Amino acid sequence: MIPTYIIAIGDELLYGQTLNTNAHSLSKMMTDVGFKVIKHISIADDKQTILDTLEQMAKVAKVVLITGGLGPTKDDITKKTFAEYFNVGMRRDENVLKHVQSLFESRGRMMTQLNQAQADVPTNCKVIHNALGTAPGMWFEKDGCVFISMPGVPYETKNIMQQEAIPRLIEFFKPPFIVHKKIQTVGVPESMLAQNIEEWENNLPPHIGLAYLPHLGRVTLRLTSEGKDKQKIEKELEEQVKKVLPLLQEAVYGLDDETLEGVVANLLKEKKFTLGIAESCTGGHTARTFTQNEGASQFFEGGIIAYSNDVKMKILGVKLDTIVKYGAVSQQTALEMAEGVRKTLGTKIGIATTGVAGTGGGTDEKPVGTIWIAYSDENETVAKTYQLTKNRNLNIQLTTNAVLNLLRKKLIKI
Amino acid sequence: MIPTYIIAIGDELLYGQTLNTNAHSLSKMMTDVGFKVIKHISIADDKQTILDTLEQMAKVAKVVLITGGLGPTKDDITKKTFAEYFNVGMRRDENVLKHVQSLFESRGRMMTQLNQAQADVPTNCKVIHNALGTAPGMWFEKDGCVFISMPGVPYETKNIMQQEAIPRLIEFFKPPFIVHKKIQTVGVPESMLAQNIEEWENNLPPHIGLAYLPHLGRVTLRLTSEGKDKQKIEKELEEQVKKVLPLLQEAVYGLDDETLEGVVANLLKEKKFTLGIAESCTGGHTARTFTQNEGASQFFEGGIIAYSNDVKMKILGVKLDTIVKYGAVSQQTALEMAEGVRKTLGTKIGIATTGVAGTGGGTDEKPVGTIWIAYSDENETVAKTYQLTKNRNLNIQLTTNAVLNLLRKKLIKI
Repeated sequence: MIPTYIIAIGDELLYGQTLNTNAHSLSKMMTDVGFKVIKHISIADDKQTILDTLEQMAKVAKVVLITGGLGPTKDDITKKTFAEYFNVGMRRDENVLKHVQSLFESRGRMMTQLNQAQADVPTNCKVIHNALGTAPGMWFEKDGCVFISMPGVPYETKNIMQQEAIPRLIEFFKPPFIVHKKIQTVGVPESMLAQNIEEWENNLPPHIGLAYLPHLGRVTLRLTSEGKDKQKIEKELEEQVKKVLPLLQEAVYGLDDETLEGVVANLLKEKKFTLGIAESCTGGHTARTFTQNEGASQFFEGGIIAYSNDVKMKILGVKLDTIVKYGAVSQQTALEMAEGVRKTLGTKIGIATTGVAGTGGGTDEKPVGTIWIAYSDENETVAKTYQLTKNRNLNIQLTTNAVLNLLRKKLIKI
Repeated sequence: MIPTYIIAIGDELLYGQTLNTNAHSLSKMMTDVGFKVIKHISIADDKQTILDTLEQMAKVAKVVLITGGLGPTKDDITKKTFAEYFNVGMRRDENVLKHVQSLFESRGRMMTQLNQAQADVPTNCKVIHNALGTAPGMWFEKDGCVFISMPGVPYETKNIMQQEAIPRLIEFFKPPFIVHKKIQTVGVPESMLAQNIEEWENNLPPHIGLAYLPHLGRVTLRLTSEGKDKQKIEKELEEQVKKVLPLLQEAVYGLDDETLEGVVANLLKEKKFTLGIAESCTGGHTARTFTQNEGASQFFEGGIIAYSNDVKMKILGVKLDTIVKYGAVSQQTALEMAEGVRKTLGTKIGIATTGVAGTGGGTDEKPVGTIWIAYSDENETVAKTYQLTKNRNLNIQLTTNAVLNLLRKKLIKI
């Protein structure tokens, strides 16, 4: 076991102004590669507190990951505190300086004295390259314990970990292999999945762990095992996956790190189908879910966010009569939106969402959480309805999930 | 100062399976009422670890808030560990038992032995009512330090704090007031802001704290002070805000908890202007930024996600000639998109984004991160360009920020 502690530095965390997502993502990354996370600690931007914490950690940890407390302005004192803790001076790192300069040049901005000082590091550290930002990561060693300091900006931290810190930590500590196999499901509640696979679960060998990880209408089943022989562990887990897949049937959309939107995108690319999206209640979230990933332009022609009834009629060709008779949140409107976006944009497939996302806008007949989604291709146009939650953002995300799942089920059949 | 420590218990936190949002929301609530949060700690569901942590806390804390480790299956460890720590036995609380029974009845479910045991508490605790769940909150006192244990389900924790724990803590400790004033800025880097306000910052009285909180092209400046006379502190901070605002000029988009999209939404609502959005590189993210908030339908008519050139031409009326001559990522295309969406949707204002979000798709002439945004109303149509980063998702968010900021600057002038 390699005991790992995760420290976050920042008054803003203790004031409750910033949510500490780094502890969460670092824990996941470290657990995945066989380190044992013992504790998360968040502390203030205060020299003595940082010194005390480092001292305590050095007694119990093999790895200490520290996020935050680095940045160009005066509230950041972390680097000097490290120098004091390790009893060393500071030096200006030429490579970091060049990197900071190039970042500023590429953004067409002028560097200040403060920015130049970002290249100053304690003399005993190995610099860890921060490709996405100006504050470098730093690797320190003392009495067999490794301290890694990284900036607090989550996407910088994540990138430093994936690209630099984790490979070096694995090289340094050679942790046991932890192998995870994941089965990604959607549309079936956790308790029902558990019922369907109960017998298989009861027969799992005790050294294989099973976790249900639910998230927004999707449930990940994760099998975990560890040891020195990676191939043997992988083979054993793959055999268990093979056994359980038939019990889960079409709830399964993918394996390991596949995402629902990624699986749907791949199906569309393979079949060379184009997609058009008409969104009312999801307000751009469904399109955004596809376009966040590179390569969306291979199948995604475009989307119409038809927030007003006017746009539903003018651009999508929804009939005034339909809206008057059934309302904007109705099976009929959803059907006409899906067909309308397919025809207007000239795509193979059209999908549509309309609903009462909330928080307000509900009626007795159509309470908050009433959602219609629709799918249209040249052969059929179909709609489904859901009664979701009272929470606006949750409803938006669950609706996008539902329409992606409807699209997936259609695509695997045509 | 009333030193407050926030402890979260749960293996799932250390595995990186659950994000600890309780530390964040409890910190905000406690800070708002004048308690000083010193540290967040997350630890495993393990008796000895919990005992050690309680012992350490008792030496330095006045208040210890503990979340998690309560529930029908985990109950035994945390509650019995408390009883052991305080050296007392357990008792069954009749009020809690009745409450648990009534919750089960209202959900039409049967109680198990495990559920009945949820009414067991250490004999020295005062029960804190958990209106939304079955695991009671518990208040312990030892040597002038208050320990409050709550379940880990975020909405239960929040409700217990607001309804029960905070009023009792204020009554018990009579804390000083902590006041924050925040200035929200966009479009100017942290280091340049710092230069612009350097003299003011150097002249701040030492009892007023200043922090720079950067986030995706926006920087929050936070002033903090505390004392017994809330009105006096507020007045002093407001005077400092008044002094610094002219130095920051139009980088400031709002104060305190205002968001950029909220400020723009309010400007549009006040002026009764309607908005249409044409997105290429942001792929729905800009519309999504508005529609995540309730009331967007008051000004947001709709959006066209014109991902393909075909949709740019067919729906937005961008000229083929323009695309052939200047390319889809160009000033001319951005201008025609903004004007096109305004005319097509019949809105007062149109905004548009087009760019090379990345990761691929860059050329020597237009590298990844080349972005054009445009604004159009009946009097003018203007475009701006940016050279952003190599990171796709960051580029999408920064582009949305930039177009919101352009829109804001136009709206405050017309």
